Amino acid sequence: MNLPSKLIEDAVEQFASLPGIGRRTALRLVLSLLKNTTEEVEAFGNTFIDLRNKIGYCKTCHNISDTEICNICTNLNRDHSLVCVVENITDVIAIENTEQYNGIYHVLYGIISPMDGIGPADINASTLVERVKSDEIKEVIMALPSTMEGDTTIFYLSNKLKEFNIKISIIARGVAAGDDLEYIDEVTLGRSLVNRTVYNSATIK
Amino acid sequence: MNLPSKLIEDAVEQFASLPGIGRRTALRLVLSLLKNTTEEVEAFGNTFIDLRNKIGYCKTCHNISDTEICNICTNLNRDHSLVCVVENITDVIAIENTEQYNGIYHVLYGIISPMDGIGPADINASTLVERVKSDEIKEVIMALPSTMEGDTTIFYLSNKLKEFNIKISIIARGVAAGDDLEYIDEVTLGRSLVNRTVYNSATIK
Repeated sequence: MNLPSKLIEDAVEQFASLPGIGRRTALRLVLSLLKNTTEEVEAFGNTFIDLRNKIGYCKTCHNISDTEICNICTNLNRDHSLVCVVENITDVIAIENTEQYNGIYHVLYGIISPMDGIGPADINASTLVERVKSDEIKEVIMALPSTMEGDTTIFYLSNKLKEFNIKISIIARGVAAGDDLEYIDEVTLGRSLVNRTVYNSATIK
Repeated sequence: MNLPSKLIEDAVEQFASLPGIGRRTALRLVLSLLKNTTEEVEAFGNTFIDLRNKIGYCKTCHNISDTEICNICTNLNRDHSLVCVVENITDVIAIENTEQYNGIYHVLYGIISPMDGIGPADINASTLVERVKSDEIKEVIMALPSTMEGDTTIFYLSNKLKEFNIKISIIARGVAAGDDLEYIDEVTLGRSLVNRTVYNSATIK
């Protein structure tokens, strides 16, 4: 795709560098931006510069926050003895959207992945240990991906936390809502049998 | 979807204002941007501001161009007696990609659409008439959408151009490559019968 202008080319390159956006979509976005006024496009560009320069993280849970301590950590209606460990802020948003969780969080910003050169020092692991040491935490829920890397991270963290008198739990792994048994992989189906729970009609919606 | 930060919220809003990008995709893009360095994000934002402030248009054909006259109009190997009228620069790119056209262009930046309040004065129609009047143009090809608005625009332009001694043509309308006849709409199929061409094995790939 030959573009008629270096400026367009640059703008297309920038959009196409984002995940899931190809050059054709990028061009459509660029042409749509060009229809806006100069002020609107300046606001568009400056929003991202502001974002990068001014973004802050909660000192307690590392969630993105405009204040020193985030809304979730300052909310006294939430259970501060329950900490959910997640990989990323998208996971916080996903869990918040379920409206099933009333504890607080700890965002690792990554999981241990030797293949990608990510070790325990590259994620927010030590601050989790400090929180457990100093705070009134009673339970840590590991809400990490059901992958080799997720499992490695859970193993590492639970080892670090086992000296403290807390409960360490892991989110349930099994059959997803709407899944047909015949299409589920063996590992998931096997786990769902091993980790079967006592039937209670109230827990099945 | 509740976002933990006003800065994130603003950035998501900006991405979500672009066509085809919803809030969930926008959040993914914002979080991907946040992983970049400050310099990279500043380059990202400034690219669009530069684009809007410095973008130029070819004085002859109105195509986007970094120079006063675009590459296509200055190319002496192209046929300057043949002008293809298109709605937008994406159409120029699409036609260039076919590698079947060696003439020059005229970009209208819109088509006449009374429903949207777009009249002949809102598109680059008068400059086309001037080009035909002053230049060595022998044929004008109307490569506009096969819609009510496209047809209205073709009717208007051909009326304006009929006083000059030039050929006015329109790109072929008919069955698209790979189409099965039974799924084609009546208008297209009807037209393809009325506008049938003499069979020549060389023209069918």
